[in-house]
Amino acid sequence: MIELTLIGIGTGNPGHVTLQAIQAMRAADLVLIPLKGADKADLAGLRRHICRSHLQGCATRIVEFDLPVRDADDPDYRRGVNLWHDRIAEAWQTAITAHLPEASGRVALLVWGDPSLYDSSLRIAERLATRLAVTTRVIPGITAIQALCAAHAIPLNLVAEPVQITTGRRLADHGWPEGADTVVVMLDGGCAFQTLPPEGIRIWWGAFLGMAEEITCAGPLADAGPRIIGMRQTARARHGWIMDIYLMRRG
Amino acid sequence: MIELTLIGIGTGNPGHVTLQAIQAMRAADLVLIPLKGADKADLAGLRRHICRSHLQGCATRIVEFDLPVRDADDPDYRRGVNLWHDRIAEAWQTAITAHLPEASGRVALLVWGDPSLYDSSLRIAERLATRLAVTTRVIPGITAIQALCAAHAIPLNLVAEPVQITTGRRLADHGWPEGADTVVVMLDGGCAFQTLPPEGIRIWWGAFLGMAEEITCAGPLADAGPRIIGMRQTARARHGWIMDIYLMRRG
Repeated sequence: MIELTLIGIGTGNPGHVTLQAIQAMRAADLVLIPLKGADKADLAGLRRHICRSHLQGCATRIVEFDLPVRDADDPDYRRGVNLWHDRIAEAWQTAITAHLPEASGRVALLVWGDPSLYDSSLRIAERLATRLAVTTRVIPGITAIQALCAAHAIPLNLVAEPVQITTGRRLADHGWPEGADTVVVMLDGGCAFQTLPPEGIRIWWGAFLGMAEEITCAGPLADAGPRIIGMRQTARARHGWIMDIYLMRRG
Repeated sequence: MIELTLIGIGTGNPGHVTLQAIQAMRAADLVLIPLKGADKADLAGLRRHICRSHLQGCATRIVEFDLPVRDADDPDYRRGVNLWHDRIAEAWQTAITAHLPEASGRVALLVWGDPSLYDSSLRIAERLATRLAVTTRVIPGITAIQALCAAHAIPLNLVAEPVQITTGRRLADHGWPEGADTVVVMLDGGCAFQTLPPEGIRIWWGAFLGMAEEITCAGPLADAGPRIIGMRQTARARHGWIMDIYLMRRG
């Protein structure tokens, strides 16, 4: 039996790691580190740094494996994601059985942010469970939403008011979501806030949150929006990749 | 100048504490611990336990103070909350100036969960800043939402789909919120899920998440709802208080 632990490690600040996460890493026989290609080498680097910091004196083995690349040309987004998750489950299985040939032991995966929030690890673990005898456990980690609010020292919600968490794609397709005056936008590669009429909206944006490269911008959307687009382009050109998130409030 | 650090400590599991939180506590001159009355003595107890575990060998002083009680009879909920926050800011000021008479130094407050999510510390810090020269910094912590998802090993969102975070009061007054098939309900003292027609809805519930007393229940709302009401009553009678949260999905 494989005990799989999905460990949230926060958003890039080694200080985001919890005591529970360290304990789970140290109890593992195997830590799997996915390699996502040269442009996101920083992310594998952070995982390696966290392992080096906390696994001294442990028998835990660290195993890197190449993460399959999603077919971004598939016109059916959900089908493309499903096929991609199947191939990642296969890659996990290959790495696990290569290093735990009796298919028994504790395997840990370090997950960016928290395994519950716009992350596919839990869905891939379900697929793995159709191939191997696996039980899955989750250790929560600091999310980008919290890192954003912390960086700006703002509350996520107004008093007793709701919050909508959504994606850039949905914001661009459907506009401001019904039923909430606070919206958090994730997975936005195209600055979808540009599609909104900016009057009465404030934005709080951040990229590389928690990392040494952290940048933030906030203000009325009409002023801050163009500044964010510029900062985002510059940062993306410099690092070769970007991870960002924003919160908007209206009224 | 007072440097105030609001430190998220997670939901009751000492393992939720991050390395960054420990560093901030150890760097503080003063840690303030609010006492909320006998029924929530466990919460002050957890804060004391965290301080004892991480402040050995530090000059940091631990100061407990009585948290003012909110006038729950005020028919204007927002006014009641505002007046209460004013009085808490006053209590913070009194505790700080008693122990840092030159109104200079580093003060830390340990915040349940994360300071951004349905927590008043940031709003109270704003009020304090009208009384003292204060800069405020936030250290994020594990939220009840993440502890819930981790306990059930479920994702918060469906693939590329939005999530609404709301309150029990709003769910009871307005029904299922527009624009999201996943809803997280916080601050619900009255099992507001009972007000929904249960067909097609699944619920994942948890109380005392992360603590030794953790209890969970999940299933179709029609079946699980009554079970949750019973578990909640029993647990509340046993402990004298309860903190719980739930996630529902429809369709």
